[in-house]
Amino acid sequence: MSFLIVSPGRDPQPWLEALKNQHPGLNIYVYPEDHDKEEVEFALAWNHPRGLFKNYPNLKVVASMGAGVDHITSDKELPENIKITRVIDQQLTTDMSDFVLALVMSHLRKLSSYKSQQTEKAWDRHNTYKRPKNTTVGIMGVGVLGTAVGEKLAKNGFNVLGWAKSDKDKKDINTYCGEDGLEEFLPQVEVLVCLLPLTPATENILNRELFEKLPEGAYVINVARGEHLVEQDLLRMIGNGHLSGAALDVFREEPLPEEHPFWTNTQILITPHIASVTKASSVVPQIIENYERLQEEEPLKNVVERDKGY
Amino acid sequence: MSFLIVSPGRDPQPWLEALKNQHPGLNIYVYPEDHDKEEVEFALAWNHPRGLFKNYPNLKVVASMGAGVDHITSDKELPENIKITRVIDQQLTTDMSDFVLALVMSHLRKLSSYKSQQTEKAWDRHNTYKRPKNTTVGIMGVGVLGTAVGEKLAKNGFNVLGWAKSDKDKKDINTYCGEDGLEEFLPQVEVLVCLLPLTPATENILNRELFEKLPEGAYVINVARGEHLVEQDLLRMIGNGHLSGAALDVFREEPLPEEHPFWTNTQILITPHIASVTKASSVVPQIIENYERLQEEEPLKNVVERDKGY
Repeated sequence: MSFLIVSPGRDPQPWLEALKNQHPGLNIYVYPEDHDKEEVEFALAWNHPRGLFKNYPNLKVVASMGAGVDHITSDKELPENIKITRVIDQQLTTDMSDFVLALVMSHLRKLSSYKSQQTEKAWDRHNTYKRPKNTTVGIMGVGVLGTAVGEKLAKNGFNVLGWAKSDKDKKDINTYCGEDGLEEFLPQVEVLVCLLPLTPATENILNRELFEKLPEGAYVINVARGEHLVEQDLLRMIGNGHLSGAALDVFREEPLPEEHPFWTNTQILITPHIASVTKASSVVPQIIENYERLQEEEPLKNVVERDKGY
Repeated sequence: MSFLIVSPGRDPQPWLEALKNQHPGLNIYVYPEDHDKEEVEFALAWNHPRGLFKNYPNLKVVASMGAGVDHITSDKELPENIKITRVIDQQLTTDMSDFVLALVMSHLRKLSSYKSQQTEKAWDRHNTYKRPKNTTVGIMGVGVLGTAVGEKLAKNGFNVLGWAKSDKDKKDINTYCGEDGLEEFLPQVEVLVCLLPLTPATENILNRELFEKLPEGAYVINVARGEHLVEQDLLRMIGNGHLSGAALDVFREEPLPEEHPFWTNTQILITPHIASVTKASSVVPQIIENYERLQEEEPLKNVVERDKGY
């Protein structure tokens, strides 16, 4: 039984080292080096070439290197019997919460705007500012990350609402569900944070129709996936003043192309997909645990429901 | 008995309105309008002309419009029998804590640096970042504001140390005291927050000698007074790489003059004295309370020790 790493465009070396440290006897191949496909039962993947895994007759598990699994579930040729796992990592969760807190606090106190003013040497005081206790943050997606983000914001005095596709019951987060819930949720939300999984149902969900239901002056934070956002709709709604701006960490094309209009929009803050960076050494123990569970025929941890996509 | 407002360069109107709302019978003069100096027993002041108050034979109290009283204590001609009071306001305290949290989180996740990169359309990922749990913030000045800031940071996972001129014992903040304490405090501090009162003993305290005792890469936040900082020393220590940067909300001259080198230093974030903006309606009740206490010959609240200057 062998282990395969497939991560084109992402350095496999830290993963290889962490896996060998944790489980010295493991026989690991790194795609695309030459290897026997029949041997491979477990793969660790990030953006694998579409259709690759259908050529592995004994493959049982594809483990994502991160919290997102859309790069795996979107492969229509992935055999149905293969299980997909995601990463649930305390460090990653804390990092995401800290990053969203940084973005929301920075938005409230207009730090980006002051940074822009600085280039013009402008001493322009915005004497009024929103305070956490008077600000409602709405989090779309209240899974592990969304819940942690919501709890951190609530702890800092914000009013926090959640929205989920299906019924959830989350401590400290008043969560609305489904289409009807969305209608109630959006008009209250002054800062919208997208932390949804990317599935066919959530692709393009951040669109004009949704933005129009937010109150005037609302601010949008996308730390999920670029495909959640209809980019032209965001630009239009910022342009007509309905939205006050956005902080975007993820994009349809990464790196964001040089000619993209987001770069020069002063109301948009661009960060290069750094909300939470998966650290191999922190994640590998749970990958190895699942590898061992597979060998002992025990149930795997953090398995994704393939029909739901998360 | 009359009440005098003296706030050259600051609109007295909201204060006048709030005072009249709170205490309709009050006889209020607004400097420099014509008034009888003998009548005035209570003054509300912000940056009054030096020496003004020595001409008021019956003046008993000068109340600051804000948390700082250096604009009053620095007047060498202020008669010794006059009491000085400062503002202690929950909203102001919370605003300061929120602002410092915004600055520290923004620094950790390099938001200013990403904003600068954006103007160059640069997709440059800083994959490593400091986390709150691995970051020690040192707060100089652990009075009402410093303590609140420290508690907010501690609640968000930071290691928080305090430094005070004299012995204090603050919950959640491990506080060092005096000159010897400063020697122990500084080498541990990765983010230094100045919240000291401005007194002859603290003027120019943020100087080269102090910065050299901070570990390499330390970051400086000044939200107290411009006069705490030796500006050239900061520029030199950022220039030689010992300090990683600074966030400054206060300056020796405000507005910061156009030719000042801070404006163009990309490692300095300039905000135009907006950390916490005193709101007249929120502060006036405690001013009126002291006014009434004076009339009834009861002890005043929030009196400043004139020899200490805070």
